[in-house]
Amino acid sequence: MSSYLVENSYGKSAVRLTKVTRYADRHELKELSVSIQLQGDFAGSYTDGDNSKVIATDTIKNTVYALGAQHPVNNIESFAKNIGAHFLGRHKQVSAVSIDISQDRWERIVTDGKPHRHAFVGGGSEKRITSVECMRGELTIGSGIADLMVLKTTDSEFHGFVRDEYTTLPDVTDRIFATSIVANWLYKTEDADFDKVYARVRQLLLDVFAEHHSLAVQQTLFKMGDSILQACSEIEEIRIEMPNEHRILYDVSRFGLPNNNEIFIPTSEPFGLISATVSRATASKPVIAPAGLSSKP
Amino acid sequence: MSSYLVENSYGKSAVRLTKVTRYADRHELKELSVSIQLQGDFAGSYTDGDNSKVIATDTIKNTVYALGAQHPVNNIESFAKNIGAHFLGRHKQVSAVSIDISQDRWERIVTDGKPHRHAFVGGGSEKRITSVECMRGELTIGSGIADLMVLKTTDSEFHGFVRDEYTTLPDVTDRIFATSIVANWLYKTEDADFDKVYARVRQLLLDVFAEHHSLAVQQTLFKMGDSILQACSEIEEIRIEMPNEHRILYDVSRFGLPNNNEIFIPTSEPFGLISATVSRATASKPVIAPAGLSSKP
Amino acid sequence: MSSYLVENSYGKSAVRLTKVTRYADRHELKELSVSIQLQGDFAGSYTDGDNSKVIATDTIKNTVYALGAQHPVNNIESFAKNIGAHFLGRHKQVSAVSIDISQDRWERIVTDGKPHRHAFVGGGSEKRITSVECMRGELTIGSGIADLMVLKTTDSEFHGFVRDEYTTLPDVTDRIFATSIVANWLYKTEDADFDKVYARVRQLLLDVFAEHHSLAVQQTLFKMGDSILQACSEIEEIRIEMPNEHRILYDVSRFGLPNNNEIFIPTSEPFGLISATVSRATASKPVIAPAGLSSKP
Amino acid sequence: MSSYLVENSYGKSAVRLTKVTRYADRHELKELSVSIQLQGDFAGSYTDGDNSKVIATDTIKNTVYALGAQHPVNNIESFAKNIGAHFLGRHKQVSAVSIDISQDRWERIVTDGKPHRHAFVGGGSEKRITSVECMRGELTIGSGIADLMVLKTTDSEFHGFVRDEYTTLPDVTDRIFATSIVANWLYKTEDADFDKVYARVRQLLLDVFAEHHSLAVQQTLFKMGDSILQACSEIEEIRIEMPNEHRILYDVSRFGLPNNNEIFIPTSEPFGLISATVSRATASKPVIAPAGLSSKP
Repeated sequence: MSSYLVENSYGKSAVRLTKVTRYADRHELKELSVSIQLQGDFAGSYTDGDNSKVIATDTIKNTVYALGAQHPVNNIESFAKNIGAHFLGRHKQVSAVSIDISQDRWERIVTDGKPHRHAFVGGGSEKRITSVECMRGELTIGSGIADLMVLKTTDSEFHGFVRDEYTTLPDVTDRIFATSIVANWLYKTEDADFDKVYARVRQLLLDVFAEHHSLAVQQTLFKMGDSILQACSEIEEIRIEMPNEHRILYDVSRFGLPNNNEIFIPTSEPFGLISATVSRATASKPVIAPAGLSSKP
Repeated sequence: MSSYLVENSYGKSAVRLTKVTRYADRHELKELSVSIQLQGDFAGSYTDGDNSKVIATDTIKNTVYALGAQHPVNNIESFAKNIGAHFLGRHKQVSAVSIDISQDRWERIVTDGKPHRHAFVGGGSEKRITSVECMRGELTIGSGIADLMVLKTTDSEFHGFVRDEYTTLPDVTDRIFATSIVANWLYKTEDADFDKVYARVRQLLLDVFAEHHSLAVQQTLFKMGDSILQACSEIEEIRIEMPNEHRILYDVSRFGLPNNNEIFIPTSEPFGLISATVSRATASKPVIAPAGLSSKP
Repeated sequence: MSSYLVENSYGKSAVRLTKVTRYADRHELKELSVSIQLQGDFAGSYTDGDNSKVIATDTIKNTVYALGAQHPVNNIESFAKNIGAHFLGRHKQVSAVSIDISQDRWERIVTDGKPHRHAFVGGGSEKRITSVECMRGELTIGSGIADLMVLKTTDSEFHGFVRDEYTTLPDVTDRIFATSIVANWLYKTEDADFDKVYARVRQLLLDVFAEHHSLAVQQTLFKMGDSILQACSEIEEIRIEMPNEHRILYDVSRFGLPNNNEIFIPTSEPFGLISATVSRATASKPVIAPAGLSSKP
Repeated sequence: MSSYLVENSYGKSAVRLTKVTRYADRHELKELSVSIQLQGDFAGSYTDGDNSKVIATDTIKNTVYALGAQHPVNNIESFAKNIGAHFLGRHKQVSAVSIDISQDRWERIVTDGKPHRHAFVGGGSEKRITSVECMRGELTIGSGIADLMVLKTTDSEFHGFVRDEYTTLPDVTDRIFATSIVANWLYKTEDADFDKVYARVRQLLLDVFAEHHSLAVQQTLFKMGDSILQACSEIEEIRIEMPNEHRILYDVSRFGLPNNNEIFIPTSEPFGLISATVSRATASKPVIAPAGLSSKP
């Protein structure tokens, strides 16, 4: 009796690329981190140390830069598709390519009231992301926003939940709601206007967060997903994760001071973690695997 | 036409717990970070802000501490099972509980040549982990080791790989091999000797890493998985991930000095990422979903 | 012969505070991390475990929240002064209080083209900081900006430097200039318009970075300091640190492609680190200790 | 009236180096991160963009690797001295060189009960560090240990402290004491047995931590410094910083369970921060500047 190689993949992660496009009137800047995984006929490398079909991860890295020089990199989705098509087209032992790209947010410096033509200021932790899966005859394009930090100081309630022997949380009708949104959506087609959809989803996440009177993080999350599906016909399905980054009311009444709902302790841990996938009603089965309770060992 | 809630889950992450057990001759120390996700009849919270079936994440946090006080916490697997059983048993609207626990490595301080009875020194980035999935009538127990950093200065080759137009890496017959192993295995049963298996797997990972003459990271990885399955009959399947944390030879010949394979640049990015799942030959299909090319959007 | 306690201090670090001020037309949000160090007659705690003069660090933490409830916290400088005055006034064994505050950047969410009254979006890694030193009869107020990430794609040269046996860098007349500015300035007085000065310094850092044609990071840094001193009469002296966060030109000519100064590798390490203190010409001696070559062991 | 350059320095930070020394019976491994700052006649670069005296930071980086190839790198102190001597000897415009080196902790993998000849396992967050200041005719050597994480489950009290209007902490006679020690010591001479002293200091820190019955973090800290000065005649002075990384007793009595001093919440923030410099009694004035209340702006 011997062991069996159930699945395998390999690739290069955190390939960082800066691309500057130098137009006459302005420079465009993209800073990306690219991760690529290949699947295919690579078992010999595992079982026998036979690398004759292995594309070195160093070559994968070089390919990102070489393709980056030849491709406009106007958006990460089309660049990811280009990378996937390259490996499938060039190496017949590759059966599937998974490309994940994360794009840093750089904004133009405003000087004299005008956006500068070639100087930029960092835009924080928020990332624009994409995950593209390329197989022969099959292409799946997902896009997303990661770590969009938001906080509202009111219009958030949480009450009426289960009370058991370990419940100590009081009902609250006015709490701070702070979270760091991660949203991932699946495109219906291969050729959407990715920039337009990204901008619309981002604004809808902010709008719903700001305007929705929240009875639960769950409710706000579903409202976000529903609003996005209503507004963006290009999207089949969206998964949203929202940590509840608690601001805990600090009790100053111990010091003879009034508790005016003004003084809080921001905490990093523990945090609530709420997630759901929202799809169009016509969808008969889930396309996106839930992250919770997945079959990870 | 309206939106559809495909899946949802929620819970509390990063619940940190220190448990001290005070024996007459020594104290035992466990420091854990616990994350719990619940699935069940919670759609009302998303669609209507109806929290009547929601167990607050604050209650989930309290439950970890309360159960921690009543359970020996002798190993993380049994504690995770205990947490899962509590939620399934106490709240009928819960259909599934996913528990992830990460345990810090603390070692006894050695004074006067002897391990101290109640003083400990930190054991680094390495973690012992478990992932337990509890459903009514179904229990899956996975355990693992995360971030086991190892490096060998020789006995590692890499050559004979594909050469294409973007390949610049030379064949090498003696390179540094550095990685940070993540291994996750599935138990066949609910009641293995978890501490014994963990210790055996950890030692085998180190032994194979040190002793195997490597022709590829892939080959060493498969050898680890195979050796572990041979030695541990309790394990059904194991998934191993190994980043290739490159040490790049620095060319001192530019300065008239000999390149003696002694001076390297350690790099954090980019890194290769190699993974595979190894199972017993009798397994007819994979139990562990591959992380690469998964259906995440 | 015995040992001697040369200096000592203690306090509480990373006291995180959220203060919400609820006006009729809008809410104001401040999120701070406060660190406090006390000096004074505390030697007995070190030498004899006599805590009779020790203000517990837990009390220091509580004091931050209690004072935060009573103080408007309209700017971090005045809040820091308030904290310092409290400890000096309340506890005669305290001879000096050092307060460091870091403020997160939150910006109002824009919905329907208007800034929202109570919803905010995270503003990234950039922090507004202050360091206030309070002694009886002496007060020093420093303020700063940390981690202001900026990048320009042109208008940066570096050439004419020393060539020795270990020099391989070519002269360049058009490189990317990326840095993460840390600026710390000393106020001449205790009662400047701290918000106005902060806003002016921040804009000047951005303006000089964007507009200055740089022959060296050093030159841009000095130009920043000089411009700030010219514009802000409230400032006595300013220290600026700028890491040179290299974007390394990736050579695609190896693949038969033209090097168009478009494809770069962003790197985190190693990085250049350039710093200087710029003062008014009338200053006869430095007030700010240089961070390089300081007498730290 | 114009601005004045009070001080300036520049250099390269985070130059990472792996050195492997290949003996017949074993390989030695050193992994270092080196930071270098130069002071000297560099004002022209700041004021005029004149780089004619500037040694490029890229050259500084190359120099680390070139010297690393020629020097045994048997300990970080001698390597730092070598780097300093190089820059002072080679470039007359350099007046001072500050070298900081941090060494990762790698331990030999034990297989078959024996330490392996060329395979290593990572030793955690703990670092061995040195700070060497080189000026013409003057040399200062400091060494240290950073981030030595320790925890004891008993033998730590804290009571008898000041009670004021913001004090809520109860007196405790048995608490967990957890910290991450940073110790920096100054050598009396240029040529101590650096490895021996390092090993002795490290063991003394662990011994005192484990064995001392603590009435205050301050007391344990002073006892460490005093013991080290007694044991190591090579050391002139030592500065120790110890964050108090609180483990907060979790009150399970709310759930009808006994509080047995067994269940705690480990916290990362806020943390106490205790520090002091301990010197030989003959020292008339402090050599090491206190970090608290320093003249940083």
